[in-house]
Amino acid sequence: MFFASDNSGKAHPEVMQALVDANEGYAMGYGADPINGEVREKLREVFEAPDAVVHLVATGTAANSLILGSMSRPFDAIFCSDEAHIHVDECNAPEFYTGGAKLIPIPSTHAKIAPSDLERAILGEENRGVHGPKRGPVSLTQLTEAGTAYSLEELSALTACAKSYGLATHMDGARFANAVSKIGCSPADMTWRAGISALSFGGTKNGLLGVEAVIFFDPALAEEFELRRKRGGHLFSKNRYLSAQMQAYLRDDLWLKAAEQANNNAAYLADALERVGATIHGSVDGNIIFADLPRSTHQCLKDAGAVYHIMVGNLEGDDPSEPLTARFVCDWSISRELIDQFIGLFD
Amino acid sequence: MFFASDNSGKAHPEVMQALVDANEGYAMGYGADPINGEVREKLREVFEAPDAVVHLVATGTAANSLILGSMSRPFDAIFCSDEAHIHVDECNAPEFYTGGAKLIPIPSTHAKIAPSDLERAILGEENRGVHGPKRGPVSLTQLTEAGTAYSLEELSALTACAKSYGLATHMDGARFANAVSKIGCSPADMTWRAGISALSFGGTKNGLLGVEAVIFFDPALAEEFELRRKRGGHLFSKNRYLSAQMQAYLRDDLWLKAAEQANNNAAYLADALERVGATIHGSVDGNIIFADLPRSTHQCLKDAGAVYHIMVGNLEGDDPSEPLTARFVCDWSISRELIDQFIGLFD
Amino acid sequence: MFFASDNSGKAHPEVMQALVDANEGYAMGYGADPINGEVREKLREVFEAPDAVVHLVATGTAANSLILGSMSRPFDAIFCSDEAHIHVDECNAPEFYTGGAKLIPIPSTHAKIAPSDLERAILGEENRGVHGPKRGPVSLTQLTEAGTAYSLEELSALTACAKSYGLATHMDGARFANAVSKIGCSPADMTWRAGISALSFGGTKNGLLGVEAVIFFDPALAEEFELRRKRGGHLFSKNRYLSAQMQAYLRDDLWLKAAEQANNNAAYLADALERVGATIHGSVDGNIIFADLPRSTHQCLKDAGAVYHIMVGNLEGDDPSEPLTARFVCDWSISRELIDQFIGLFD
Amino acid sequence: MFFASDNSGKAHPEVMQALVDANEGYAMGYGADPINGEVREKLREVFEAPDAVVHLVATGTAANSLILGSMSRPFDAIFCSDEAHIHVDECNAPEFYTGGAKLIPIPSTHAKIAPSDLERAILGEENRGVHGPKRGPVSLTQLTEAGTAYSLEELSALTACAKSYGLATHMDGARFANAVSKIGCSPADMTWRAGISALSFGGTKNGLLGVEAVIFFDPALAEEFELRRKRGGHLFSKNRYLSAQMQAYLRDDLWLKAAEQANNNAAYLADALERVGATIHGSVDGNIIFADLPRSTHQCLKDAGAVYHIMVGNLEGDDPSEPLTARFVCDWSISRELIDQFIGLFD
Repeated sequence: MFFASDNSGKAHPEVMQALVDANEGYAMGYGADPINGEVREKLREVFEAPDAVVHLVATGTAANSLILGSMSRPFDAIFCSDEAHIHVDECNAPEFYTGGAKLIPIPSTHAKIAPSDLERAILGEENRGVHGPKRGPVSLTQLTEAGTAYSLEELSALTACAKSYGLATHMDGARFANAVSKIGCSPADMTWRAGISALSFGGTKNGLLGVEAVIFFDPALAEEFELRRKRGGHLFSKNRYLSAQMQAYLRDDLWLKAAEQANNNAAYLADALERVGATIHGSVDGNIIFADLPRSTHQCLKDAGAVYHIMVGNLEGDDPSEPLTARFVCDWSISRELIDQFIGLFD
Repeated sequence: MFFASDNSGKAHPEVMQALVDANEGYAMGYGADPINGEVREKLREVFEAPDAVVHLVATGTAANSLILGSMSRPFDAIFCSDEAHIHVDECNAPEFYTGGAKLIPIPSTHAKIAPSDLERAILGEENRGVHGPKRGPVSLTQLTEAGTAYSLEELSALTACAKSYGLATHMDGARFANAVSKIGCSPADMTWRAGISALSFGGTKNGLLGVEAVIFFDPALAEEFELRRKRGGHLFSKNRYLSAQMQAYLRDDLWLKAAEQANNNAAYLADALERVGATIHGSVDGNIIFADLPRSTHQCLKDAGAVYHIMVGNLEGDDPSEPLTARFVCDWSISRELIDQFIGLFD
Repeated sequence: MFFASDNSGKAHPEVMQALVDANEGYAMGYGADPINGEVREKLREVFEAPDAVVHLVATGTAANSLILGSMSRPFDAIFCSDEAHIHVDECNAPEFYTGGAKLIPIPSTHAKIAPSDLERAILGEENRGVHGPKRGPVSLTQLTEAGTAYSLEELSALTACAKSYGLATHMDGARFANAVSKIGCSPADMTWRAGISALSFGGTKNGLLGVEAVIFFDPALAEEFELRRKRGGHLFSKNRYLSAQMQAYLRDDLWLKAAEQANNNAAYLADALERVGATIHGSVDGNIIFADLPRSTHQCLKDAGAVYHIMVGNLEGDDPSEPLTARFVCDWSISRELIDQFIGLFD
Repeated sequence: MFFASDNSGKAHPEVMQALVDANEGYAMGYGADPINGEVREKLREVFEAPDAVVHLVATGTAANSLILGSMSRPFDAIFCSDEAHIHVDECNAPEFYTGGAKLIPIPSTHAKIAPSDLERAILGEENRGVHGPKRGPVSLTQLTEAGTAYSLEELSALTACAKSYGLATHMDGARFANAVSKIGCSPADMTWRAGISALSFGGTKNGLLGVEAVIFFDPALAEEFELRRKRGGHLFSKNRYLSAQMQAYLRDDLWLKAAEQANNNAAYLADALERVGATIHGSVDGNIIFADLPRSTHQCLKDAGAVYHIMVGNLEGDDPSEPLTARFVCDWSISRELIDQFIGLFD
C-alpha cells in the first residue's frame, strides 16, 4: 500500500534487463557510447522532430534547470505556476543554473495557469526599463504537480501568449507520459506542435532507475547545453547506462504502456476513494490523486501500514480541526490487489 | 515642476561644500581615510548602537544586495512585499548577490505587509525538507515604495514574527529619513529597538550625490561584508568623497532637516491635489504621493512641462478608459512656488 | 585492446547483481531507502570514522564540486595542482558550485605538488587585505591524474602545511582505491589520519555504473551539503540504485580487489611497454601509464584497433616531429590476453 | 611625501568645479541626464569610434568585471597576466560577474605578457572537448600594474594572436592616460586600431573622484551591459555627477595633461632614486616605480613620514635579509618640492 510517490516503485524489469545487457565490453564514455546515438535518434523519431537536439541526464531537477539555464539570462524573469516543481521543490536549482534569474509564480487552479494570468504576469515585467528583470521563458508542467493535465487547446493558448511576447517555452514533463496517455495524442502534438520550445522528458517516475531526456525542439536554444551539463556535474562518464535505460523505455512504447498502467491504477483508486467518501480535488488526469481525509481515517490507514504524503493539514500553523489533504501517487507497478486491500481499510 | 523622483534633485549645498573641503591633500584609499572613521563612529552614535558594523557604499541597490548577500545562503527564501524595490526594481541584483536565493513576494496594501501574511509566507517555506528553499531573512522597506510608513508597532510585530522563526530582518531605508521625520522617533527606535538586524540607510534620495550607509546592528551578520563589497566592485578607492558626503549629511541633523522639508513639500502638494479633485491612494506618510488623474489632465500637465511618472494606466495592456495613476515625489529642494505653479495648471 | 579510460569498462557483475536485487518492491526516495542507511554506516566503518558525514552522488565532478562548495566561500582561493581534474577537466564546475572561487594552479611533477610549492602559493594569497581572494581549501588528488601516488608522508606534509594556515583539505579520490591498493595502508591512514578533511571516494572508475561517496571527516564542513546537493540537481529520487551499487562495492572489499586487479594489469602493461622500448613517464603507481610512442608505432596500434588517448603531441600547436605521449588506463576488467595481444602489435 | 597610490591624491580642481556646476536644478536619473549624452558622444569623438557603445561606472573593478561579464560565458577561460589587477586585486569580482569563468594567469615580465606565452595559454585550453573551459577573452592592462607600457606593436601582436583564435580583447585602462601620454599615440591607435574590443577607460586614478568609462568598440559585445550594470548595483540614480566628472576630464585634454604631469613626476623621482642608489625594476613608462631599498633606508623614510607600499620583502614568509621592493606612485598633484624633500631623506 505504497502511494508516497511514483519514484518509490521499482524500475521496470525490461529496463533492468537492458542495463544488464548493456554491461558487456568497452564503450567510450561521456555520451560517445553507440546506444546513446541510437537513443537520441529514436527520440527524434518518437517526437517527429528530426532537428531536435537531444541529451540525457539523470534527474528531473537537472533536466529542468539545465534547460532553463540554456533559455534564460541571469537578469530574466521565468514565468511558472505557483505550484511548479521548479519553484517549490528544487531548492533554488533554477536560480542556481540561470545565474540568478527570478521565478514569477502565477496563481493557478489545481496547478494549471490560465492564459490571462500568464499574460498579466508577463505584462507585469519589463515595464521599468533596466530596473526590473527582462521577460524570460515560460515553464509549464504537464502532467501538473496537482495531477491535472492541460488540454492541447489550453497548451496552445499558453504558448501563443508566450510567443506573442517573443518568449520561449519549457515543458516540465516529469510525468509527460501520463499526460500523453490521458490525452491520447502524439508526443509531437503535446510539444512542438503545441508551441513548446524544449521538454524535460521524464523517465525516472515511470519505470527507469534515473534518466530524463532533454529535448530542444528549437535547436538554437541548445547551443550551450553540453557545456552547461558538464559544468553542472551532470555528464556521466559511463553514459551507456543512461542510454540503455532510455532505449528500453522507448522500445515497443514501454513508456506509454507503463504510464497507462499507472493512470489506470490511479483511476481505479480514485473511484474507490470517492465511493468510501473521500473528497477528490480537481480532476484525476494521470497518476496523482489529491483527496481530503478525516484525521481519524488517516490514522487508521497509517497504522495499517499505508504510505502516502499529507500535503495540507499537518504543517506548522495548519488548523488541526480541518480535514487532511492527502496525495496518492500510483506508479506502474502497483497491483489492483494492493489498492483493494488499501480501500478495504476504510471499512 | 519636477516630481519624477527624489533622485532628480540637486545635492544639498552643504554636502557639495563638504566635498570641496575634503578635496585637499592626500588620503589613504579604500576606507582608510580619516573622515571615514569619524563618520562610522558618528553613525553608531546617531543610532545609539556602539557595536554596530558600519560601511559606506554608493548606491541603494548595492546596499540592499550586499546586506542580503551577507544574510542569506543561496538556497534561502527572502521574504518581502510584492512591491519591494529589491523585488521589482533591482534587475535581480539580490538574486545575483545571494548566489541565487529566491525572493518570496508577499501581498501588500500600499506596499505594507501584515504580520499574518508574513507568517503565512514563512510557513509556506521549509516544509518540504531539502526540496524547497530554507527560510531566510525578511526585508521591509521604510518609507515604503508606496509612500506609506510602518508604525513602530507594525514594525515590531513584523520583526517579532521573523524572530519567532529565527530569521534576520533587513530594512531598506532608501527613504529612512522621511519615515523617521514622519514618525518622530529616534533612529534606534525605528531599527534595532524595533527588531531590525541591518539597515540600508539612504542618503542619495535625500540630498547626497550618491552614498548609502550599511549598518549591521547584529555584527555577526557583517563578517563577510567587506569581502563581498570588494567582490561586487563597490569598494571605492577614493572613499573620502563618500565619507565627506555622509559627514555633512549627519552634521547638525541635515539628514532629518532635508527629509522634513521633502515631507512638508509632499503634504502641501497632496492637499493641493485633493483640493483640485485628484484621488490620493493610501496615506502620504513621507515624500511620495500616488494619485489618480484623468487622462486629459495628465496631458495638460505634461504639455506645461510637469515631469512625473505614470505608474498604472499607460503600460502595455492597460485599459485606456481608466484614469492614470501618477506618482509625485518631492525632494528637499523643490520650492512652494513651483508646487503652486504646478497646481495652478489644474485650473 | 581498450585503454582509453577506466570509465570505458563494464560494471562489475556483483554490482550489477546488487542492482537487480535492489529492484524489488517499494523504497522511500531521496536517500530514505534502507540500503542507504546501511551503506553510510558501512562507509564510516571502513574509514574508522564514526562521526563522518557520508552522502552518495552519481558523478565525480558532482562529488568534488559539492565538497568544494561546502568548504569555500565565493571570495576564496582553492589551491590545487596545475594538473588537477578540478582545474582542467570539470569545465569550471568548481567555480560554479563555489559561487566563483578562484582555483590557484600549483606547479607539479607528474601531477604531484610539493609542500614548499603549496606554501608559496598559500603565501601568495591573502596578503592584499580585501583586494585579493582569501585563502581557501587545498585539494589533492590521490591517485593523481598522472597515475602517481602521494606517499602517506607526502600527504601528511601537505596537509600539515594547509593546517598551519587553518585551511581545510579535500582529496579527489576518483581513483582512491588504486592508491590504497598501491600503498597498502588503511583508508583511514590515507585520509583523516593523514589530515584530510573530506574525500570524494570514487566508485565509477572502479566497477560501479556511476556512484561516488562524499565523506566529510570534519562534520562541521558538511552542514550545507544536502541543500547544495539538491540545489545542484544531484539528489536522486530513486537513491536505492546508488546505495545498492555502493553496498556491493564495499562488500568483501570488492572495491580493493577490483583496484588491485586494475593496478596489476597496469604494472603488467607497463613492463611490457618498457620491454618494447616505450619511455614511461614518472612512476606507475596505479592503473594509469603515460608513455612516449613514435608516431609510426601509434599509427600501427590505432590501425589494429587499439584505443587510448594521446595527451601530448597531436594538439593544435604541437610539434609533429616529436614523439607522442599516450595515456593507457587499465580497468579491473581488462584481461591479460588483451594486453598480450596489444603488446604483440609492437613487433 | 605621499607615493602610496594615485588614488590617494585629490581630485583635479576643474573636476570639482564641474561637479559644483552640475549641481543645479533637476536632471533625470539613471543616465538620462543631458551631460551624459554629451559625454558619451565626446568619448566616441576622442576615440574616433562613432559606433562605440559607451557607459560610465564609478569603480575600476566594476568597469573591468562588467566588461568581462559581457564578453564571457561562465564556462570560459579568461587569459591575463599573472600580475593582472583582475586576477590578484579584485577579490574574485571577475569570477562573480562572469558567473564563474576561470582566469588563466600567464607568466609575465614586469607584468607584460609575450604573444608566444599568450598563444601557449590559449592552446592549453579547449583541447579537451566539453571537459575543460572554452577559450574566452584576453585581458591586457595598459599601463601595466608594474608601471610598464606595451608598445603599439606589442599590443597588436597580442590582439592578433587573440583574434586568430576568434577571441575578444579587453584592455584594463585604469592608467590608460599615462600610457597614451608615454607612447604619444592617439587613443584610437592604442585601442581599436590595435585590435582591442573593449576598454576600461580610467579616470579615478588620474584626477576624478570616482568615474571610469566603459567603451565597447565592438558594439555586439555591449548588448547586455546595461542590464548587467543595473544587476550589479552600478547604475547611479544621480548619474549627472558621474557625467560631470567625465566631461571635465575630457575638456581641453585634461585627462592627458594630468597624466603627463604624473608621468613627469615619476620620471623625475626615478632619476633621483637612481642617483641615490636605489635599483629600479623594469622601465618606468608611466607614473609607477618599483625600486629596491635597503631595509634601513626604508625605516628612515618611514620615520620621516614618507608613505608608499612595500610589495616584496615584508610579507609572511619573505626573507628578512633581502632588500625590500617598494612601489612609488606619483599622481598629477604631487609637487617637485615634495619629491625633492623625499629624496633629501636619502642623504
